[in-house]
Amino acid sequence: MKQFINSKETLVTEAIDGLLRTADGRLARLDGYPHIKVVLRSDWDRSRVALVSGGGSGHEPSHAGFVGQGMLTAAVCGEVFASPSVDAVLAGILAVTGKPGCLLIVKNYTGDRLNFGLAAERARAQGLKVNMVIVDDDVALPDLPQARGVAGTLFVHKIIGALAEQGADLDTLTREARRIIKGVVSIGMSLDTCTVPGSPKEDRIAPGKAELGLGIHGEAGIEQVDFSTARDAMEKVVARLTPKIGSGPHVALLNNLGGATPLEMSVLAEELVRSRIGEQIRWLVGPAPLMTSLDMQGFSVSLLPATQADEAALQAPVAPWAWPGCKPVGEIEIMVLPDGLAPIQPIPSRNDTTRALIERCCNALIAAEGDLNALDAKSGDGDTGSTLATAGRALLKALDRLPLADHTQLYRAIGLELSQTMGGSSGVLLAIFFAAAGDASASGANTIDALKAGLDRVQQVGGARPGDRTMIDALAPALEELSRSPAQAAAAARSGADATAQIRRARAGRASYLAENSILGHNDPGAEAVARLFKELAAADAKLVGSL
Amino acid sequence: MKQFINSKETLVTEAIDGLLRTADGRLARLDGYPHIKVVLRSDWDRSRVALVSGGGSGHEPSHAGFVGQGMLTAAVCGEVFASPSVDAVLAGILAVTGKPGCLLIVKNYTGDRLNFGLAAERARAQGLKVNMVIVDDDVALPDLPQARGVAGTLFVHKIIGALAEQGADLDTLTREARRIIKGVVSIGMSLDTCTVPGSPKEDRIAPGKAELGLGIHGEAGIEQVDFSTARDAMEKVVARLTPKIGSGPHVALLNNLGGATPLEMSVLAEELVRSRIGEQIRWLVGPAPLMTSLDMQGFSVSLLPATQADEAALQAPVAPWAWPGCKPVGEIEIMVLPDGLAPIQPIPSRNDTTRALIERCCNALIAAEGDLNALDAKSGDGDTGSTLATAGRALLKALDRLPLADHTQLYRAIGLELSQTMGGSSGVLLAIFFAAAGDASASGANTIDALKAGLDRVQQVGGARPGDRTMIDALAPALEELSRSPAQAAAAARSGADATAQIRRARAGRASYLAENSILGHNDPGAEAVARLFKELAAADAKLVGSL
Repeated sequence: MKQFINSKETLVTEAIDGLLRTADGRLARLDGYPHIKVVLRSDWDRSRVALVSGGGSGHEPSHAGFVGQGMLTAAVCGEVFASPSVDAVLAGILAVTGKPGCLLIVKNYTGDRLNFGLAAERARAQGLKVNMVIVDDDVALPDLPQARGVAGTLFVHKIIGALAEQGADLDTLTREARRIIKGVVSIGMSLDTCTVPGSPKEDRIAPGKAELGLGIHGEAGIEQVDFSTARDAMEKVVARLTPKIGSGPHVALLNNLGGATPLEMSVLAEELVRSRIGEQIRWLVGPAPLMTSLDMQGFSVSLLPATQADEAALQAPVAPWAWPGCKPVGEIEIMVLPDGLAPIQPIPSRNDTTRALIERCCNALIAAEGDLNALDAKSGDGDTGSTLATAGRALLKALDRLPLADHTQLYRAIGLELSQTMGGSSGVLLAIFFAAAGDASASGANTIDALKAGLDRVQQVGGARPGDRTMIDALAPALEELSRSPAQAAAAARSGADATAQIRRARAGRASYLAENSILGHNDPGAEAVARLFKELAAADAKLVGSL
Repeated sequence: MKQFINSKETLVTEAIDGLLRTADGRLARLDGYPHIKVVLRSDWDRSRVALVSGGGSGHEPSHAGFVGQGMLTAAVCGEVFASPSVDAVLAGILAVTGKPGCLLIVKNYTGDRLNFGLAAERARAQGLKVNMVIVDDDVALPDLPQARGVAGTLFVHKIIGALAEQGADLDTLTREARRIIKGVVSIGMSLDTCTVPGSPKEDRIAPGKAELGLGIHGEAGIEQVDFSTARDAMEKVVARLTPKIGSGPHVALLNNLGGATPLEMSVLAEELVRSRIGEQIRWLVGPAPLMTSLDMQGFSVSLLPATQADEAALQAPVAPWAWPGCKPVGEIEIMVLPDGLAPIQPIPSRNDTTRALIERCCNALIAAEGDLNALDAKSGDGDTGSTLATAGRALLKALDRLPLADHTQLYRAIGLELSQTMGGSSGVLLAIFFAAAGDASASGANTIDALKAGLDRVQQVGGARPGDRTMIDALAPALEELSRSPAQAAAAARSGADATAQIRRARAGRASYLAENSILGHNDPGAEAVARLFKELAAADAKLVGSL
């Protein structure tokens, strides 16, 4: 277990300080480290009801990340997954509460309930108006009298934050908070457990399984379910939520529990909208990390019946960056492809000699696929062979459409064909090569000069030079020798390709990012491909080669 | 390898659709799935220079997440870690480019360079004004002519985005982009590799090691270094950047490569500010996921010399939520603790009998630490014993300060003492218990009634009832029997504690989140603690117990 921390003991205070570094005068902390860790608005004048939340750390950006105008007034932070002490909560209350009073927004975990509860009693004993609401949105355990508080808490922070900002009084805020809490339901699913600083990682979720109904403190999910796809995962989550909600429109909150990638979260968002309750989801908060569980690779969905007032409160602008906004869920806007993409198709023409030569070259590339992939795996992602073989197959298929009798048009057509069927570097380099050769041919260049013009353009766009360990190391000497004979060109290509094995450091392409000892002794796959092509040319009938 | 995806083939298109679901009319995509994946502004009128970026996917929120007013006009998305095709890039260019032209912002990876380069040539051939800049901010490989483009690209997106929004022309934007690119330096460090969808995870970073100078496509870092702490990690990163920057003020960008938690990132932010170049860092973008590498547990730091114009451009508001803002780096604002935290200290008094009784109880709790921790580990985090033993030790230390001769004051003092030294649930419950007992005693209740009042308050705040598998299951019957004799109270406590082992489902506390079979057969640790305390009372001299 490796983590970017200095010590378990200083983790939370250092993280809070890191957060405060860029608070731009809007946030401060109380002078109570390490015992009292309270983040509060420094632009707060106690003229309205203060909103105080908090709990154990490890759920960032909750709660300190949501302190600021329009959301929380203060966050009381415990150690990772541990409730803050009564003194810490009391300090937070006392630091921000004025005459209008203070509302404590507490997730229903025993420790938080007790520490915030006792602190509230002490604050009241000092004459302050303090109310407390307990969020219990988790529906994982249907028969539990005290459901946990999880990501649905954010609905309370945001809506009550907006109302408090407008000046609502403590009783109104308390009543509204309880109404929201009554309406919110949440459930989470995870593919892996979280890594608690200083503790070995628990490995309790088997391959092919996911935990459904998990808490946010590393406690096990209430059940393990089969996991296959994002769609199936979302379906299982939605199945738990459906019986708990009414038939009206809802706001959904899609929470990243920490370790899911943005790609996964976006797929899950799409699946949520496509799910059986998708029609009911009018607004979406996220996907975003809102109430995380350290690095847990999971997500949770929270649902709130949508009222116009709540929607407005959810959309009110707030200071904390971590709030991702609440956006209407709509259709995906699709624009038609622009004109100018479809290239002008050349008029096909026949030339059996040229056709045979192209077929020979293409088949040579297809035959070399495995060898070239293996070479590429030494320095790259092992796909050069496949990329070139794909090009070969595409050209073979396209032969009937090609202007085989017109070299200028043929070069351009091959270039277009390759650029349409290939995404990899080698494919594009070939496309650039043939496009430039076509231009040169149009200007009257002979075959060899046209090919040299292609080489020039490839060097210009690709940035590679001879000696950089690329296909150029074979292609440049081969084209130099081609005017003498195909055999001499083939020998030059082979010699150039073999020389790449001794180039200690790649200067271009993916291999250039690697230390030298991983590539030394292996030919560059692009150069090797060129050498094999020229060998094929040399072995072909003179008549075929003459058709170039 | 489990991921929330449906298939590798549909991952990127589904993720883009998920992103577009909540675009609120501001984003669209081209109708070219699956080959052409272009996200573009739907509120774009081509009246200014278009900014087009993109590349392989897996770097979210880059690049589609930064499309919107003030940043990119369009993002061209390839498959994961694969450059988009020329056709896809060309479609993006054609879809957004008007008379003012288009600037392509490309990270220096061969595939991107080639595909964007060829697309630019094709667009130019259709009469469009298209320039291309290549970002090469990575300083991992000092002698490489073509450095990679990594997270520093965001500086280009944001600053050029602001200038384009203001109406700057293509030549100005191109020149400014090249100036920024010349100034930006970046380097990354990671503790783990990323998980590429559809591929087994490579396990190449040993325990105790980190990769320094990594790319964002899963390619290995240029070297493995020893890893110990966040401070040391940041020091190693800063050491690579320091020789590359001038002595003036800089803007830093702290990028989460995907899998680092917000806690870790905040600690790293603090370490960056505390580092040897901390004084030079006037502004900070992040910490935030900006240019990720799937789920890689790593970070990168990018530095840009700060000019007033660049700072202004970095702070200009933008539509995309994923941009975290650029904030001034300042001192941490620390507020003094509020008054009212320090409780009024009672006047100490002596009572040797009471003292001996308290010592006996405290020592019993200390002796039970290991047993109670073990019981708690069956259902919780295994700390009940430590929490209670800590309480015992604290009380023993506090004995000289306690009003031992005044029961009312003593209860309250014990309550305060416990609430100041303990954060866990059991500690607070005990504090609430004694605070309420003190209140009752002040109202004239005898010892047993005072303790019963404490029990009532604990039930009220904690929400637990007899039968819920908590310490109440031992405490309630024991207090009922205490008026008869300490021995009968002890027997009742033991019987109550042992009965908790047969309660199939916890109804309160952390154990309530667990399935029943994990706790059946084990006593609740809180109830067990109560039983042991009453056993100690029963075994004590009658004189001691009489002092209660």
